[in-house]
Amino acid sequence: MFDPIQAISDFVRAPSVSTDPAFAAGMAGARDVLCKLFRDMGLTVEVCPTPLHPVVLARREGPAHWPHVVIYGHYDVQPADPLPLWTTPAFEPVIRDGRLYGRGTADNKGPQMAHIYAVAKLLEKNPGLPLRLTFLIEGEEEIGSPSLEAFLAANKERLKGDFVLLSDTMSPSADQLTITTGLRGILCLEAELTGPRTDLHSGIHGGALLNPIQALAELCASLHDADGRVNIPGYYDGVQPVLAWERAELAKLPTTREQYRKFLDISDFHTWGGMTPFEATRFQPTLEFNGIGGGYQGEGSKTVIPSKAFVKISCRLVPSMDPARIEALVVKTLKERCSPKVKIEVKCGHSGNAYRVVPPDRPDTPADQSPVLAAAFRAAEAEAVKVSGNPPIYLREGGSVPIIDTIRRTLGMDSVMLGLFTPECNLHAPDESLHLGLFAKGAAVSEAVLAAVAGMAPRTN
Amino acid sequence: MFDPIQAISDFVRAPSVSTDPAFAAGMAGARDVLCKLFRDMGLTVEVCPTPLHPVVLARREGPAHWPHVVIYGHYDVQPADPLPLWTTPAFEPVIRDGRLYGRGTADNKGPQMAHIYAVAKLLEKNPGLPLRLTFLIEGEEEIGSPSLEAFLAANKERLKGDFVLLSDTMSPSADQLTITTGLRGILCLEAELTGPRTDLHSGIHGGALLNPIQALAELCASLHDADGRVNIPGYYDGVQPVLAWERAELAKLPTTREQYRKFLDISDFHTWGGMTPFEATRFQPTLEFNGIGGGYQGEGSKTVIPSKAFVKISCRLVPSMDPARIEALVVKTLKERCSPKVKIEVKCGHSGNAYRVVPPDRPDTPADQSPVLAAAFRAAEAEAVKVSGNPPIYLREGGSVPIIDTIRRTLGMDSVMLGLFTPECNLHAPDESLHLGLFAKGAAVSEAVLAAVAGMAPRTN
Repeated sequence: MFDPIQAISDFVRAPSVSTDPAFAAGMAGARDVLCKLFRDMGLTVEVCPTPLHPVVLARREGPAHWPHVVIYGHYDVQPADPLPLWTTPAFEPVIRDGRLYGRGTADNKGPQMAHIYAVAKLLEKNPGLPLRLTFLIEGEEEIGSPSLEAFLAANKERLKGDFVLLSDTMSPSADQLTITTGLRGILCLEAELTGPRTDLHSGIHGGALLNPIQALAELCASLHDADGRVNIPGYYDGVQPVLAWERAELAKLPTTREQYRKFLDISDFHTWGGMTPFEATRFQPTLEFNGIGGGYQGEGSKTVIPSKAFVKISCRLVPSMDPARIEALVVKTLKERCSPKVKIEVKCGHSGNAYRVVPPDRPDTPADQSPVLAAAFRAAEAEAVKVSGNPPIYLREGGSVPIIDTIRRTLGMDSVMLGLFTPECNLHAPDESLHLGLFAKGAAVSEAVLAAVAGMAPRTN
Repeated sequence: MFDPIQAISDFVRAPSVSTDPAFAAGMAGARDVLCKLFRDMGLTVEVCPTPLHPVVLARREGPAHWPHVVIYGHYDVQPADPLPLWTTPAFEPVIRDGRLYGRGTADNKGPQMAHIYAVAKLLEKNPGLPLRLTFLIEGEEEIGSPSLEAFLAANKERLKGDFVLLSDTMSPSADQLTITTGLRGILCLEAELTGPRTDLHSGIHGGALLNPIQALAELCASLHDADGRVNIPGYYDGVQPVLAWERAELAKLPTTREQYRKFLDISDFHTWGGMTPFEATRFQPTLEFNGIGGGYQGEGSKTVIPSKAFVKISCRLVPSMDPARIEALVVKTLKERCSPKVKIEVKCGHSGNAYRVVPPDRPDTPADQSPVLAAAFRAAEAEAVKVSGNPPIYLREGGSVPIIDTIRRTLGMDSVMLGLFTPECNLHAPDESLHLGLFAKGAAVSEAVLAAVAGMAPRTN
């Protein structure tokens, strides 16, 4: 049996930043790590080309009456900058205080390894396990999975399974496992404002024209009201109220408001509509500025009026918000509110729907929920109690894994999402890390889920 | 006699960016070019250390009854970025269509060479010219001349002259010489806002806290009203009305409003208080955003809530505005208006007073104006008519040369400023250039001024 921490480390050492073509070798390196692992486990491995980054597909086939679990993950990672803020280099994983540090350790290389390791152990114990498995590991999650929908559609028959098992969501702490019951949708766009044809001397020309940074600041400032609500008419149209059982689950969060405030190191939260920060991040949509730039940003001063300034925006959406409608609304608002004294160009990036799944035995559990999916949820809960001492919390999460909704729409499968990173893991940020204890719990729960699902296979003699 | 264009080219090849310590060798190289030129002209050359960048001092001494002209220039330049926007490399000067392109060709290496060349020619024609000369060439103009005031105070006796001659200001076109009668003051500062302790995943945490980019946009947007007026109570206190003769001079500008608009490539100007853009840039103060930054600025998207965001601000001031008062007012306003949900740190940079000088024979010419200064103005006007076919325009300018007011305060000298760059010269911007025809006119006017001043020396036999 391979050492899973060693395997994650090898995986992290391949700098697989999907958004930047300069990291092509890192992307290939990450695929190589996966392919070797899957081949060693006896799976059938394919590296499937897409218009951008290939999908790694690893399959264990079997009779049609065996349950079929699709395990999803992504081998791409976010950029590692700002590099100077890392304690140790982003792509040189090291263990400190029970955590493995490095870009991708938590998102998503470590958590997906919990499932790979679980499968390897199960197959070692029972080579004849009555379970079909498909690992679907994409390389475009961090850029919105542009190729995956077409890939799913083209491979619909062989990818169709009972449910998807994955870990690309959060648990509130290493002691409290979470099963994620919802994800926010997302859409990304970028607005670039152009004033004068070139950067200008701010002495010679200052006072004659609208500075594009000023125009951008005024435009951005118009997008929220003083409470923090998105100030775009129609933005919240059709947003559904939150169900009581979901609020009750959220109330079990072990984190206090004050702990969360200290963790963020802010003087106060910024929520509206009476929501707690824990509710706001899960149940409300946002419009967030991810980056802004323009003019001189180096040392000292350079007294220019810049030609251009830009802002990168992402919106997190809740169920019932259509990304296309919101995108059109935001683009229209930006164009309408931007001063006509500068030019504005808006580029739309990736987008994806929000997602929601209801576990068994809830007031709104669908009557036609598949018994295999229900068994998976129940096995996860039982094993979580065993390894953690308490049942998992069922939580919606603020992050986005748009592919989860895409899978449901194209293949009709729901997802069982086991949260294997915590707020301290610094996702998308410097000093990203994986909690090794939580990883071990996750591998145990994954193994229990897969064993339970294999137990659903009809006896055939 | 040296070739002045060759000399400027050698000077530009030394990348003397004073704001960035990485350019120390370029700073030294630029001093070497100057020292060699001055030594070849027979002047006494000193490279005088200061706490930052040395001053190059080159002197022609003589009897105390000879007039003494101090010629000012600066050998430092602005950073050349954004480098990709240069047609040819910034520090490899080339001539295209009667212009010499390169960083510093117009600000200030070319224009100061007009005076160096004029002196060289005068001294070649008349080695016994009854004129004392001091070239005072500093290396910190682009960063606010932090060392020069102490240098002037420490060298007060030998630097005291009848007036200062310089060219670090603009003419509206190569056909219309300008004598600059005023400069705006300046102050620079930078505000950095800090939200959470580190960049955060905008899905997991989005909705809980105030994004520092949003706080910065809202702060910046508060600093101007819809007309473009600086929205800080007290900002305009004590600003003096513009005199009629100055408006009349400005009306002689050959540039039309439409030409200026097309030059800037903007759809419309952004002025207030009924001022034309030509008036606004000269007679009104500004508060300008020179740079903004925060979060992810690379290719594609990175869905973070950044920890920090910053803005670089510079204010251009008109006579009677005290930089210290305005700095305190802006800092106070930024701190008061910034949301308490983020931290704000304001760093103040360099500052300098505005300046105004009145030529002879104007309604407000000081009764005690020195006859040597008056003779210099009159000689400049006469020679300008000769080389250009029309008298110079007497204009205030929007840019800042804070040292001009410092010289008046410390040494009691006024300045004769001959504008030797034009709006097309792209100062502080990519593709900076020097108009070679205007350079030649400037050298002729400089020679005429210095000859006329030498003619003021009392006969001594």
